[in-house]
Amino acid sequence: MKGYAMKRIGEAGWIEKDRPKCGPNDAILRPLAVAPCTSDIHTVYEGGIGERHDMILGHEFCGEVVEVGSEVKSFKPGDKVLVAAITPEWNSREAQAGYSMHSGGMLAGWKFSNIKDGVFGEFVHVNDAEGNLAHMPEGMDYGVACMLSDMMPTGFHAAELADIQFGDVVAIFGIGPVGLMATAATNLKGAGRIIVVDSRELAFKVAKEYGATDIVDFKVAPSDEQIMKLTNNEGVDKVIIAGGDQSLFATAMKVLKPGGKIGNVNYLGTGEFIKIPRVEWGTGMAHKQIFGGLMPGGRLRLEKLARLITYGKIDPSKMITHRLEGFDKIEEAVRLMKEKPANLIKPVVIIEK
Amino acid sequence: MKGYAMKRIGEAGWIEKDRPKCGPNDAILRPLAVAPCTSDIHTVYEGGIGERHDMILGHEFCGEVVEVGSEVKSFKPGDKVLVAAITPEWNSREAQAGYSMHSGGMLAGWKFSNIKDGVFGEFVHVNDAEGNLAHMPEGMDYGVACMLSDMMPTGFHAAELADIQFGDVVAIFGIGPVGLMATAATNLKGAGRIIVVDSRELAFKVAKEYGATDIVDFKVAPSDEQIMKLTNNEGVDKVIIAGGDQSLFATAMKVLKPGGKIGNVNYLGTGEFIKIPRVEWGTGMAHKQIFGGLMPGGRLRLEKLARLITYGKIDPSKMITHRLEGFDKIEEAVRLMKEKPANLIKPVVIIEK
Amino acid sequence: MKGYAMKRIGEAGWIEKDRPKCGPNDAILRPLAVAPCTSDIHTVYEGGIGERHDMILGHEFCGEVVEVGSEVKSFKPGDKVLVAAITPEWNSREAQAGYSMHSGGMLAGWKFSNIKDGVFGEFVHVNDAEGNLAHMPEGMDYGVACMLSDMMPTGFHAAELADIQFGDVVAIFGIGPVGLMATAATNLKGAGRIIVVDSRELAFKVAKEYGATDIVDFKVAPSDEQIMKLTNNEGVDKVIIAGGDQSLFATAMKVLKPGGKIGNVNYLGTGEFIKIPRVEWGTGMAHKQIFGGLMPGGRLRLEKLARLITYGKIDPSKMITHRLEGFDKIEEAVRLMKEKPANLIKPVVIIEK
Amino acid sequence: MKGYAMKRIGEAGWIEKDRPKCGPNDAILRPLAVAPCTSDIHTVYEGGIGERHDMILGHEFCGEVVEVGSEVKSFKPGDKVLVAAITPEWNSREAQAGYSMHSGGMLAGWKFSNIKDGVFGEFVHVNDAEGNLAHMPEGMDYGVACMLSDMMPTGFHAAELADIQFGDVVAIFGIGPVGLMATAATNLKGAGRIIVVDSRELAFKVAKEYGATDIVDFKVAPSDEQIMKLTNNEGVDKVIIAGGDQSLFATAMKVLKPGGKIGNVNYLGTGEFIKIPRVEWGTGMAHKQIFGGLMPGGRLRLEKLARLITYGKIDPSKMITHRLEGFDKIEEAVRLMKEKPANLIKPVVIIEK
Repeated sequence: MKGYAMKRIGEAGWIEKDRPKCGPNDAILRPLAVAPCTSDIHTVYEGGIGERHDMILGHEFCGEVVEVGSEVKSFKPGDKVLVAAITPEWNSREAQAGYSMHSGGMLAGWKFSNIKDGVFGEFVHVNDAEGNLAHMPEGMDYGVACMLSDMMPTGFHAAELADIQFGDVVAIFGIGPVGLMATAATNLKGAGRIIVVDSRELAFKVAKEYGATDIVDFKVAPSDEQIMKLTNNEGVDKVIIAGGDQSLFATAMKVLKPGGKIGNVNYLGTGEFIKIPRVEWGTGMAHKQIFGGLMPGGRLRLEKLARLITYGKIDPSKMITHRLEGFDKIEEAVRLMKEKPANLIKPVVIIEK
Repeated sequence: MKGYAMKRIGEAGWIEKDRPKCGPNDAILRPLAVAPCTSDIHTVYEGGIGERHDMILGHEFCGEVVEVGSEVKSFKPGDKVLVAAITPEWNSREAQAGYSMHSGGMLAGWKFSNIKDGVFGEFVHVNDAEGNLAHMPEGMDYGVACMLSDMMPTGFHAAELADIQFGDVVAIFGIGPVGLMATAATNLKGAGRIIVVDSRELAFKVAKEYGATDIVDFKVAPSDEQIMKLTNNEGVDKVIIAGGDQSLFATAMKVLKPGGKIGNVNYLGTGEFIKIPRVEWGTGMAHKQIFGGLMPGGRLRLEKLARLITYGKIDPSKMITHRLEGFDKIEEAVRLMKEKPANLIKPVVIIEK
Repeated sequence: MKGYAMKRIGEAGWIEKDRPKCGPNDAILRPLAVAPCTSDIHTVYEGGIGERHDMILGHEFCGEVVEVGSEVKSFKPGDKVLVAAITPEWNSREAQAGYSMHSGGMLAGWKFSNIKDGVFGEFVHVNDAEGNLAHMPEGMDYGVACMLSDMMPTGFHAAELADIQFGDVVAIFGIGPVGLMATAATNLKGAGRIIVVDSRELAFKVAKEYGATDIVDFKVAPSDEQIMKLTNNEGVDKVIIAGGDQSLFATAMKVLKPGGKIGNVNYLGTGEFIKIPRVEWGTGMAHKQIFGGLMPGGRLRLEKLARLITYGKIDPSKMITHRLEGFDKIEEAVRLMKEKPANLIKPVVIIEK
Repeated sequence: MKGYAMKRIGEAGWIEKDRPKCGPNDAILRPLAVAPCTSDIHTVYEGGIGERHDMILGHEFCGEVVEVGSEVKSFKPGDKVLVAAITPEWNSREAQAGYSMHSGGMLAGWKFSNIKDGVFGEFVHVNDAEGNLAHMPEGMDYGVACMLSDMMPTGFHAAELADIQFGDVVAIFGIGPVGLMATAATNLKGAGRIIVVDSRELAFKVAKEYGATDIVDFKVAPSDEQIMKLTNNEGVDKVIIAGGDQSLFATAMKVLKPGGKIGNVNYLGTGEFIKIPRVEWGTGMAHKQIFGGLMPGGRLRLEKLARLITYGKIDPSKMITHRLEGFDKIEEAVRLMKEKPANLIKPVVIIEK
């Protein structure tokens, strides 16, 4: 079969591979739509997860089942399904502890385009299909369905990590697609005031549609100064970090109230240490709590987030600025993601209508 | 001073009383607006909390500070303030345990028109003013401000008790003003599907504006049957009880999934027992969890809920169907509440513009 | 193979059956020791779960692996293993929601001697072996290992459901083997005062060894009166129900403080309703929270509870009053459980030393 | 009155001061016993909280009430009482949010020998006496009672921050008196294996009595290497930091499993940043959660922890290696704390028997 792959660090391209095999608990899918992610770029052009050879890229998609193993009862060939970027082994001890995304080891629930081939191929292998597939709701747009793989669950997990409560004042750093979904999730969890920090006009515009109440352009003045001014020097109850670099943890500590929480979903790609400023962290005694974690996947989660779309509580299509058609457009979509033109938030490739 | 009072069970009317005295931690307020509550009717006409004589009624209001005690630092005469129906002693052991509403004994955080005079008087006494007042946001409508005393915090607490999570399917029984606020709160907490159960056209209409996705009219067929049908016999993740009688707990158990939660904010006024059906409760082994509790009050809570109004996340004025003007209109507002015409959701009395 | 079975309601005896088959995710074990449980008696002599024919009884055991399916990587023939009475499907939506014991439906994680043959046979089938087996620690007594199937995890879950915190005053109703383990678990979670309610001398003696601080003999005076007296009319922070009948919920409500929690692990076998007294429940507003649930199973849980034994934090052998030897002694052990002599807490049958 | 005070950074000594005044919510106490804390040394000799002049030192004590304000109802002159080192304003917004120790600002619940005079004087002022005093249990040793001010609540809070669960493997760094109490608390919360890291023989000996199962002497080999070896390279579920310097956060991350939690109660006195190692923190995606916080105080907390002593669940006297008698021995006790001889864990000064 054909696939768009990382050939080696710095080089991507089309390759031929054998179709994946289906074990007793597995499913083989045919993608209906796919979306490239910043982390695909990070993986292939920056060597973010180390060297790989001829590994098919991609972890965001929806598909049609073409084969299932003997132990898979809930899905059959022809079913249209949702799949998360993270596909845990649900009987692992980590999953039993509530951290399925680390099943088999730290971050090891992330398999697509990391431990095995990703989803930019003609066929895709899904482990533990009972646990990792969900039926696609009737009539869901395939492009929107792709947002359920990573952008929505990662953004929504940010709001869960930060433990948003009714009326909270929240600062969100970085409003790319994940930060936008974190904005929508923060809004959906009942925050009172949502301050988004970025510098892109388009991002600010969409963030407002998703519930942001205040805009902080970090190019105008240091973001912590602006946030303290906006909040009458009271600071914020919660912080979400969905972009930027390590220095944001120091900024976050400055604006966070005692008892506040930081939810991080930004993959921290470089540097030896994340530095927490001692005084602003209250000498370690301020109950300023730091959480960071990979998104949860799984059938139940997919069904729950899909329900928010079905019942009109959120419209992820506001993020889809580019919609390409045909399997061979994957290459162009990846290039768009690499070049990030100003009018881009998220591209999708519709393989089959 | 003048006040509209419960003279005895079955009789309400105007009385004269001494102005309340202000201790070191107290404040004396002048009401700017008040609202009658179903429980005022329950108190005076059904003897819901037992006999009382010449007790001024009412627990929903906003006001202006006229006097503060020596230990009150954050408020001064002339300040316009929000006050919750529940005014705990914040240094009690119950408050320290997280249950301020039970400070001094079960339900004893409820003082207005229960343990002492209520708010339908020319002056109102507030204990622990530092902990129980909040500054009214600039420009807030006084009628809306009254919704922060009880309707919003009680409805929002229901959603907290039921522990609403992203994408949950939720059934809400009873959509009077508290149930409507519970609907809005459930929506604000990220529920996926919100099934409201009632029989009143007007309530259904407003519930939809607050986020309800499905309507169940219990006069058409048993509500549990309708809910199971709507959910493909899967049932619901969470239940909120905001009205009706004890039998709803049995109905709730029938539609609730294992691991589900019931949040009750309905004051259960009569009967010896609440009956939980053994088989539907999984012989006590189904993790169908039962919560019921009085709303929390306090300055922080008031500020957080007020923020939701200020930033446009919720508009409680959709519930205010009747707006009377003048202190002496309290009597008419109480009568409206007693008679509950079909076009009534919630009346307010604006005392001073 | 041979097995001790429920032939029909009211009749137990030895039967012959085919050895169970091993699917890709399964394991077949040979029991090393087994223990009968009150619920075995309930099942066969009281028809507690309805009619069954020639169903092998038992759900408490430890064993040796004799066969594993193709997908089982962590266990191999010859391994000695622990198994919980509850063996969920870990990739089910219920397990993903944190309620593995209800995987596939309410209480459906309970498979042994309920949905399929139990453990009183020469061979035992375990589904999802990766998720449901744990390696037995070197040198663990086989009789003690059986306590990890049900008595310890059920008793410990009671303390989790009741959410025991440092210094809590706790009342535990019923101190059969599950209640004794709940007592030990309550002690291990840091309760301050542990009041056990029962009437058996032997139970009181062992309960004290497990950390009980106060004894209430319900034959002497109503237990709620005794508890209120012991606590200076303050009542208790938490209640555990591990025995008795439905009426204990009313007793529990009487002694429970507002904000308190009830953890039930008693299988409520008869009656149409559990009755919650309205006034003591604070008209549904007292935050007296009611939890009841089947124990969690799984590899991680088994490992964690086994660690408490290995490191000397708990000694379940204090409960083992009768130790029989040989597979054919299962019959006698079941009879002991049925007759419950005064010197019995828990019998075990050692099949192989 | 007389008091032992910080005269300036680097100098301590006896001074004369006016007796503190009693406001409506306050109490004035006469100390019955006091204990010096490492942070007293830190305050006066290292300038840990900045310059102070003639500020009476000390925050650990128990006392007798000599005067109460008009609003104090639960205590009267002559009552013997417990007091925590942290004395919040319970009606503050921070306390309402569950973070009473930060009432009035970050760490501002810590008033003794920080914001106002401490407890090494003839009289001591306690704010919000209703919320901050507790009756001393009949017959409690005054030296033990002093352990309830800081050592026990801080150590126990560490176990709460780390969220110890049944059977957890826990590493505790630093077993001075706070670390020893954290060890006891970890044991009391049901940990399975408790690995303590230090280098002092006496500390190891007492730690074992409080439940430690494994000893790691960091002078023998790097502690992370030893812990990984002890745990078969699996690492630990939870980490408590109760001593040492900032570098321990890096060590902790190395030994902590994904989904694990760090509870810090070590006051981090120097350095600009706490450095979290990026790779071991899973690039911010490992759900390795970082908590650090000042102990909670208050009446309820004092009563709950005191109950653990009364009912024999913990014996803090094992830590009291030096017991001096007479108010004027405070000086010698402070010197002992400064010099820390090898046979010292904790000194107390009994002022009145």
